[in-house]
Amino acid sequence: MNNDEAEIRSLLAEFTGALRNKDADSAIALLAEDAITFDLAPPLEQGPDATHNPALLGEWFQTWKGPINSESRDLKLDVSGNVAYAYGLQHMTGTKIDGQEVDLWFRATACFRREDGQWRITHMHNSVPFAMDGSERALLDLQPE
Amino acid sequence: MNNDEAEIRSLLAEFTGALRNKDADSAIALLAEDAITFDLAPPLEQGPDATHNPALLGEWFQTWKGPINSESRDLKLDVSGNVAYAYGLQHMTGTKIDGQEVDLWFRATACFRREDGQWRITHMHNSVPFAMDGSERALLDLQPE
Repeated sequence: MNNDEAEIRSLLAEFTGALRNKDADSAIALLAEDAITFDLAPPLEQGPDATHNPALLGEWFQTWKGPINSESRDLKLDVSGNVAYAYGLQHMTGTKIDGQEVDLWFRATACFRREDGQWRITHMHNSVPFAMDGSERALLDLQPE
Repeated sequence: MNNDEAEIRSLLAEFTGALRNKDADSAIALLAEDAITFDLAPPLEQGPDATHNPALLGEWFQTWKGPINSESRDLKLDVSGNVAYAYGLQHMTGTKIDGQEVDLWFRATACFRREDGQWRITHMHNSVPFAMDGSERALLDLQPE
């Protein structure tokens, strides 16, 4: 693993840690100024104002009882110059305030740019597929093969 | 726009053209050997064997009556060295063989690597968000703001 790869893995670990600790400011500090997110929840896209708004992230944090755990599996990573991307399956677990136990596998892609010597997240795309059987159901119970 | 950006935009246009013409071999020729896709339909991920299988793409093509149109909006693109990524909202329109008119906005992220002087697609992630109201419904009727 080269230095850039190590830095990006460390950045992702920091982001995951900020989610676990429900620390919106620390998570947002890892984003590039123009960061755009395609998330599990609507809308279609969150632009830079939304991705940098700690109140929005805070609202989501408040729907969880304890820590929000998110673990990556088989992360693929490519870096060259000042641009990088990473993707893999992500396993999110925890308890919502209504007592619901979350145990969700989803797909996560993240993109990065180095600005003034610091790697930052420019884009995140999180999703599950949906059933093509006419039910239009989001598939929240899929497991990796 | 520099040369690399122009080459990647041209690669994406070629891919879109291959889908429109239902030309599985031409679409697959644009993929890197290790390409992994997170698509609208299950499974969670399609590994290199699945992404390079023209029969799988062909099955999907056969569910459409005429051309499959897919247009990008506000595509963001970053390139450095031999790595790049692009993302934006995608508008897919066409008619399924059962007469259903498709008019779908979804989120698309694509990653690229230059190998032996040629840019190739290493990863695609296509999705819609899902409703967090307990219905677990995939949101297929969202429009860009």
